[in-house]
Amino acid sequence: MGMIGGSQEAFIGAVHRRGSQLDGEIELVCGAFSSSAEKSKATGEALYLPENRVYGSYEEMILKEKELPEGERMDFVSIVTPNHVHFPAAKMALENGFHVVCDKPATLNLAEAKELKKIIDKSGLIFALTHNYTAYPMVKEAKHLVDSGQLGDIRKIVVEYPQGWLIDLVEATGQKQAAWRTDPARCGAAGAIGDIGTHCENLIEYITGLHIKELCADLTIFVEGRQLDDDGNILIHYNNGAKGILHCSQICNGEENDFNFRIYGVRRESHGTKWSRIRWCLGRATTERGLFVRP
Amino acid sequence: MGMIGGSQEAFIGAVHRRGSQLDGEIELVCGAFSSSAEKSKATGEALYLPENRVYGSYEEMILKEKELPEGERMDFVSIVTPNHVHFPAAKMALENGFHVVCDKPATLNLAEAKELKKIIDKSGLIFALTHNYTAYPMVKEAKHLVDSGQLGDIRKIVVEYPQGWLIDLVEATGQKQAAWRTDPARCGAAGAIGDIGTHCENLIEYITGLHIKELCADLTIFVEGRQLDDDGNILIHYNNGAKGILHCSQICNGEENDFNFRIYGVRRESHGTKWSRIRWCLGRATTERGLFVRP
Amino acid sequence: MGMIGGSQEAFIGAVHRRGSQLDGEIELVCGAFSSSAEKSKATGEALYLPENRVYGSYEEMILKEKELPEGERMDFVSIVTPNHVHFPAAKMALENGFHVVCDKPATLNLAEAKELKKIIDKSGLIFALTHNYTAYPMVKEAKHLVDSGQLGDIRKIVVEYPQGWLIDLVEATGQKQAAWRTDPARCGAAGAIGDIGTHCENLIEYITGLHIKELCADLTIFVEGRQLDDDGNILIHYNNGAKGILHCSQICNGEENDFNFRIYGVRRESHGTKWSRIRWCLGRATTERGLFVRP
Amino acid sequence: MGMIGGSQEAFIGAVHRRGSQLDGEIELVCGAFSSSAEKSKATGEALYLPENRVYGSYEEMILKEKELPEGERMDFVSIVTPNHVHFPAAKMALENGFHVVCDKPATLNLAEAKELKKIIDKSGLIFALTHNYTAYPMVKEAKHLVDSGQLGDIRKIVVEYPQGWLIDLVEATGQKQAAWRTDPARCGAAGAIGDIGTHCENLIEYITGLHIKELCADLTIFVEGRQLDDDGNILIHYNNGAKGILHCSQICNGEENDFNFRIYGVRRESHGTKWSRIRWCLGRATTERGLFVRP
Repeated sequence: MGMIGGSQEAFIGAVHRRGSQLDGEIELVCGAFSSSAEKSKATGEALYLPENRVYGSYEEMILKEKELPEGERMDFVSIVTPNHVHFPAAKMALENGFHVVCDKPATLNLAEAKELKKIIDKSGLIFALTHNYTAYPMVKEAKHLVDSGQLGDIRKIVVEYPQGWLIDLVEATGQKQAAWRTDPARCGAAGAIGDIGTHCENLIEYITGLHIKELCADLTIFVEGRQLDDDGNILIHYNNGAKGILHCSQICNGEENDFNFRIYGVRRESHGTKWSRIRWCLGRATTERGLFVRP
Repeated sequence: MGMIGGSQEAFIGAVHRRGSQLDGEIELVCGAFSSSAEKSKATGEALYLPENRVYGSYEEMILKEKELPEGERMDFVSIVTPNHVHFPAAKMALENGFHVVCDKPATLNLAEAKELKKIIDKSGLIFALTHNYTAYPMVKEAKHLVDSGQLGDIRKIVVEYPQGWLIDLVEATGQKQAAWRTDPARCGAAGAIGDIGTHCENLIEYITGLHIKELCADLTIFVEGRQLDDDGNILIHYNNGAKGILHCSQICNGEENDFNFRIYGVRRESHGTKWSRIRWCLGRATTERGLFVRP
Repeated sequence: MGMIGGSQEAFIGAVHRRGSQLDGEIELVCGAFSSSAEKSKATGEALYLPENRVYGSYEEMILKEKELPEGERMDFVSIVTPNHVHFPAAKMALENGFHVVCDKPATLNLAEAKELKKIIDKSGLIFALTHNYTAYPMVKEAKHLVDSGQLGDIRKIVVEYPQGWLIDLVEATGQKQAAWRTDPARCGAAGAIGDIGTHCENLIEYITGLHIKELCADLTIFVEGRQLDDDGNILIHYNNGAKGILHCSQICNGEENDFNFRIYGVRRESHGTKWSRIRWCLGRATTERGLFVRP
Repeated sequence: MGMIGGSQEAFIGAVHRRGSQLDGEIELVCGAFSSSAEKSKATGEALYLPENRVYGSYEEMILKEKELPEGERMDFVSIVTPNHVHFPAAKMALENGFHVVCDKPATLNLAEAKELKKIIDKSGLIFALTHNYTAYPMVKEAKHLVDSGQLGDIRKIVVEYPQGWLIDLVEATGQKQAAWRTDPARCGAAGAIGDIGTHCENLIEYITGLHIKELCADLTIFVEGRQLDDDGNILIHYNNGAKGILHCSQICNGEENDFNFRIYGVRRESHGTKWSRIRWCLGRATTERGLFVRP
C-alpha cells in the first residue's frame, strides 16, 4: 500500500493505517503523506519507511513506484486527503496501473464521478470507496441478520446522523476540520449531506442491499454566512417498496456523533424480539484519546 | 364530572378517572359508562355511585343532569368513548350548558371540526381536548426548559412514535383495539396518523409553542387488506423557521410504544449540555400491570 | 382514612394521598396534618375537608373520631410524619381501635419494634408498613416473574441504592430533609442504612420472598461531623442459599436516586433472555415537577 | 516480538497481535504458536513468517533466537498461552535475556509469583503483565479525570464483572473455554476471582492508583461438581480510606460480560456532573464477529 495524504497532523490517515493492519494482509511500503514535502518526510520517518520510499507529492510517488518491479512496488494507493484531491489522485493512479482505495467522496460532483467511472472501466482495476462504519462488528452482524432472512422483507428504515458542532459559524474561526468541510471548493457540492448523509445511505445499502428509488429532500443552511447545507431531512422510497427517513445535521446542538439506524421487517418475532428489527447506535464523538464506539 | 364511556371493559376510561383524582379538585358524580345500559350500571356500582346518577346513555345523562341544581349536577362531561361518539356527545353537552373534556380526536373529520368550533364559540363554554402525554412531569420539565429560554430559538425537531403491533392484519382476527382503530367509520379518516401521529404534533406544540406551517407527508398502507394508513413519514416546516421530522407507524415490528422527541436550539451549552437540547423517551407498552413510563 | 402528618409543606404526604386514590376504594375523611394546628387547618381546607374533621394533633383526632359512629369515623390512620412520631401515633391508634397504615420505619429502634408487635397482636387490627417502591408496575412484574417460576431458583441478588446528596455536611446548613435524617433523635439508630437501605431489603423480600439469614456489613461515616452512617456495603446470605450484595449510600457524588436491583436464577433462557434474570432500575430524583420513574 | 501461544485456534492470540500493531512500533518476527509443532507451523505460514522463524516449542524458540544477532532476534516474548504455561515460559525467557510481555495471570499461585519476582529482579529485564481493559480510550479518560484531580479524593468504588455462561456444569461438555478455566491444574487456584475478578482489581488500581488494604471475601461454588469458585462478593478497604465493593461471577444468568465500575469522589459538581463521578460500562460478550465495547 502507498498512502496519499495522512500526515501526522491529518485526521483520518492514522485510522486507515491502523485499520489496514487488522488482518495482517497489508503492508505500508511508501507514501506521499502531505502536499508539504517536509511534513511528508517527517511522517515517513516516524513510520520507519526508508527515505527513498517517502515522496513529496502523489505525482512523484506514482511515477517513481511505477518504475519498481512488481512485488516491490506498491500494489495500490490509499487516498486519505481532503476531498478535492480524491479525484485527480485516483485518476492518475488508475491511468498508471495502480488499484485505488479511496476515502469518500470519490469526487467533488457528479460530472467528475461519471468521468471516473469511465476511467475505472477502461483500466480494469479496482476502485474501492471506503466508508468506515461498515467495518464494525455489529454492522456485520446487522447485515448477517438481514441476509439470512431473519427479518423477512424490509418495510421501513430510519437512519439518522445528527451532530451539533457547527451550530455557530465555526469555519470563521479557522478551525481546521470546519474550514474545508464548509468550503465548496474543497469539499464539493454538499455540506452535511455530503459529509455525513452519505454514511447513512451507504450503511443502509450495505446492510440491506436496498437502493434509493426516489427521494424528497429538505436541505437547509441554518447558520447565516454558511455556504453549504448544514441540515437535511429526507423521505425515501426504496427499490423494494420499503419507505424511510434519512436525516443528517451539523446543527443538532448537543449531539456529538449519534449515527444510528433502525430497520424493520415483516417477520413476527419468534425467539426473542431482536430478530424482527435491528436497532443500532454507532458513533459518539472522537475524543483526544481516540475513537470509541457504542454498538 | 360526568363520564361518557369508560366502562370496566374500556381501555382509557379508568386512566382518565385516576388522572382526575391526582390534584384532588375533581369529583366523579355521575356517568353513562357504556352504550349498554347494563354495563353502565355495573360500572357505576363498582365506582360507588348512587343508582340514580348512573345512566344508560349520554343523551339521558345530559338531559337528567340538566334538571339538577347547580352545585349538585355535573359541571362537565369527560368523553372517553371510541372516536365516532366524540362529536355528537360533545355537541349535545355544549348545547345543553355543560363544559366538555374530550379525549382526542375531537371529531372524525375536518368538516365536523369546523362545525364544532362554531358550537363552542356560540356556547361560551370550555372545550378541552386531552392528550395524555402532556401530563408527565418530564414533559412539563421539557416545556419549562424551552419557555425559560434555556435552549434559545428552536431550529430542529425530531418526533417519532413507532409501534409494531399491526404488522399483520390484526383487525381481521377481531382483536378489539385493532378493530375500531382501523375502521374509518369508527375512528375517522386517518389510521396511524390519527391514532398516534396526533400525539407527536400535539406534544411538540405543547412543549415549544410552535405550529406547523407546511408539511410534506408520505403515508402508506403496508398491510394488504387494511383501509387506513399504518405508516407515515413527514417533513415539517414550523412557523418560526425551524425544520423537522415527524414519523409514526404501526408496522415497526418490535417497537412497543417508543414515543420520543428531540428538540434542538441555538444556545451553545453553558453549564452542562442538557440545556441545549432535550431528548426524551416516553411510552413503552401498557402491560397487564399498568402503564409505565420511561422518561 | 385519617391522615397523621402530610401538611402542605411535607414531603411524602401528598404522595400518599394521591396513591390512596388510585383504586377508588379509599376516602380521606379527616386529618391531623401538622403538629402546628394552624398548618393542619390550612391543609385541611385545601383538601375540602369540613372544619370539624381537621384536627390540631393526632391525639385529638384519635379521641374525637372514636366517638363518631362506624361508617362515618375514619377506619384507619395513615401515618406520614417524621420517624420519631410513627411509634407513639401507631400505638395510640391501635389501642383505640383504629387500623394503621404507617410509613417506614415502624419505630426508631428494635426495642420499640418488639413492643409494637405485642400491641398489634393484642389489638387484632391491621398494621401495614408502606414502602413506596413495591407499588410500581414493573416491580409487580418482577415479582410475577419470580413467583411463576420463570427464573427457577434464585442464586444471586445485587441491590443498590446510591445517592449523592449528602457528600457535604448538608445538615449543618439547616436543609430540612437533611436535618432530621441525620439526627438520631428524630430518625433512629441508622442513617443511610435506615433511610434507603431498608428499601433494598424490603424490595428484594417483596419480589423474591427470600429472607436474610446472615450478613456482614461495613458501615461508614465519611463526612466529618456526621452522627450516623452515610454509606453501607453489605454481603448477604439468603435463607435459600442464595448470596448477594446490598449497598446504599448518601455520598455517591453525582447519583440522584439510582435504586436498582438484579436477580439471577438458574433457569437457562428459553424464549428470550429476560426470563432468566431481572434487571431493573427505579428511582431518579424527585424534581419540582414530580416524582418520575425509570423502569 | 516473538509470540508464545496464539495459534489460529486460540482465543486471545490474534487479539494481542492486532493490539501490537496499533502504534506501529512492534514487529512480529517469530513464534512458537502451539504445543503442536504442526499447528505452530500452519499459523506461522498464515502470518507470512519465514519457516525458520516458526518454532515447535517455546524452548526451541528461546534458544534459537538467542543465537541470532541483536536487531534481528526477537527483543521480547509475548506469552498468550493457557495459564499454566505462563510462569515456565516467562522464567526461561528472562533467564535467557529476553524481556517478557505476559497475559495475566503471571503464575498459578503465590509461591510461583514470589519466585518470579526474584527472577525478574535478577535479570534486570522488563516483565509486563497485560490486562486488556486498560487499553480502551474511555479507561484512559477515566484515569485522566482522576489524575487531574477533577473528582477530588476518592471515597467509594463499586466494580463488578458479572457473566452468566457457567450457570450449568459447562466444563463437563468439553467446551474448550470452560474446560481449562475450571481446572485448578491448568488455570490456578482461583475460578471467577482469578479469571475476571483480577480485571476488577487491576482496572481500579490503574484508574485510581489505589491499593487494597484489607478485604472480606465471600466466595462460592454454586454449581455442583465444579472445583473452583464461580461467584465472589467482596468488601474492600482501600489504602486511602475509601471503601468499596468488588463482585464477579460466572453464574449471573443472562449477563454476557457486563464489566463496569463507578468511582465516586468528594468534589461537588462544578461544570457538569460528570466530573464528580465516573460511571462506565465495558465489556459485553465477544461475538463471532468480533469484540465490541460499550463505553
